[in-house]
Amino acid sequence: MKPFPPKPPIGPDTRLCMSLAARPGKFGSRFHNRLYDRLGLDFVYKAFTTTDLAAAIGGVRALGIRGCAISMPFKEDVIPLLDGLEGSAAAIDSVNTIVNDAGRLTGYNTDYIAIAELLDKAELSREAPFVLRGSGGMAKAVAAALRDRGHRNGTIVARNEATGRPLADLYGFDWRADAAGLAGSLIINVTPLGMKGPDAEALAFPEETVAASDVVFDVVALPVETPLMQLAARLGKRRISGGDVAIIQALEQFVLYTGVRPDIAEVEQAAAFARSA
Amino acid sequence: MKPFPPKPPIGPDTRLCMSLAARPGKFGSRFHNRLYDRLGLDFVYKAFTTTDLAAAIGGVRALGIRGCAISMPFKEDVIPLLDGLEGSAAAIDSVNTIVNDAGRLTGYNTDYIAIAELLDKAELSREAPFVLRGSGGMAKAVAAALRDRGHRNGTIVARNEATGRPLADLYGFDWRADAAGLAGSLIINVTPLGMKGPDAEALAFPEETVAASDVVFDVVALPVETPLMQLAARLGKRRISGGDVAIIQALEQFVLYTGVRPDIAEVEQAAAFARSA
Repeated sequence: MKPFPPKPPIGPDTRLCMSLAARPGKFGSRFHNRLYDRLGLDFVYKAFTTTDLAAAIGGVRALGIRGCAISMPFKEDVIPLLDGLEGSAAAIDSVNTIVNDAGRLTGYNTDYIAIAELLDKAELSREAPFVLRGSGGMAKAVAAALRDRGHRNGTIVARNEATGRPLADLYGFDWRADAAGLAGSLIINVTPLGMKGPDAEALAFPEETVAASDVVFDVVALPVETPLMQLAARLGKRRISGGDVAIIQALEQFVLYTGVRPDIAEVEQAAAFARSA
Repeated sequence: MKPFPPKPPIGPDTRLCMSLAARPGKFGSRFHNRLYDRLGLDFVYKAFTTTDLAAAIGGVRALGIRGCAISMPFKEDVIPLLDGLEGSAAAIDSVNTIVNDAGRLTGYNTDYIAIAELLDKAELSREAPFVLRGSGGMAKAVAAALRDRGHRNGTIVARNEATGRPLADLYGFDWRADAAGLAGSLIINVTPLGMKGPDAEALAFPEETVAASDVVFDVVALPVETPLMQLAARLGKRRISGGDVAIIQALEQFVLYTGVRPDIAEVEQAAAFARSA
């Protein structure tokens, strides 16, 4: 069943959306083009790379390219090239989505938006302590979203003090080098532990920390069922997965570009299609 | 029968080709995308406009957009933004096609290329006189192609001396304000006379001039069967039409972008499809 009109052929009124990444992948093209097709939207999506970010962004503006996803290593460097930052990008000084309104480029961060949405849905008390393991870009997004929700009682765990302490200081949390002995109502892994590869079997938190928590959030998306998420399921904890973040951020990007909010089943189906390539 | 592999879905390796025009039309998108589809080529084509030509061309370079068709009013202004001109564009200081080879942008003029090809096919003697009516951009392309074939004996007819005489002087031909009493083995109309609109019924040359000619070339493409071309057919003259120019220039643009030369039947079918919208 396809309840929408057929997608028109590409023509002068078709809007282009795109991505900029050092190594463009297949997911974005497949996800967005699939949804355009399903919803009958006059859009087309294409992944690009560049060695001249300023000229590429100038081209986005001059050609009226409607939206542009920004991946590594451009998320911070792109900021001075834009005309403004929406709150999600301003909160973490990192842009993963540009929206072009008649030549005015605004930066968003849909990872932040997705994390904030998922934290809201988990209905955590602002007073409950959290433990966040990691100190990279995604850890920053999670820490900022927690701070902006009103959480004040949290610890950033990062072996590297040079990145972990400034992140904790930035949002008013504590820093610790090690998770041992820590407990939180919410525990969050934002390291690669549990990800496909050499650390696939590693548990990001000691079992007793998981047991003492209410909500377990693992940002690792490949695989979604990390050892941490499997343990959380066995212990009957509420879970937020990297897969949830990936889907919601892609959906929010889609909404920003098109103004259309597909239902979540349609989005999940498009994401499954995009991953199947 | 479709003898080619299916076109792959849009992905990171898909090449984008595009056009820049003040008012983008449907023809290019439909023509090129149809051929990509028919030939199983991993390309996509999209029409754009811009109010910032320099930034748009900078974007073509920085995003690795493979090819860009250039229409009014950008054909001359684009030249200083490119890295070089191929002979066809250099001959008339006008670019209608850009090819991007790893960031190096070269300008071509496929109108010139198409006209030169069609003149070659007509196998005209270099000594036979021609009469060319018109003094705009396309008249320049025809005059340059004739000069470059070795034609020395020709007259540019243009009521406007301010444009007609410099064009004639540039390529070493005569100028006349009026076609009356002129005769040529080749006669060429590059004015809008005979085009759909108020001058649709007008004949670009006196009947006796047509009768005295061997080859009649009317650059008007809408309609292809102008009063001049109909008269030429009745008088049994060899004919070159604006439709021929339009098809060959589109074909040569396609070849420059993709490196693939489709057979002419495939090209004519795609052009008919593109015009049918």
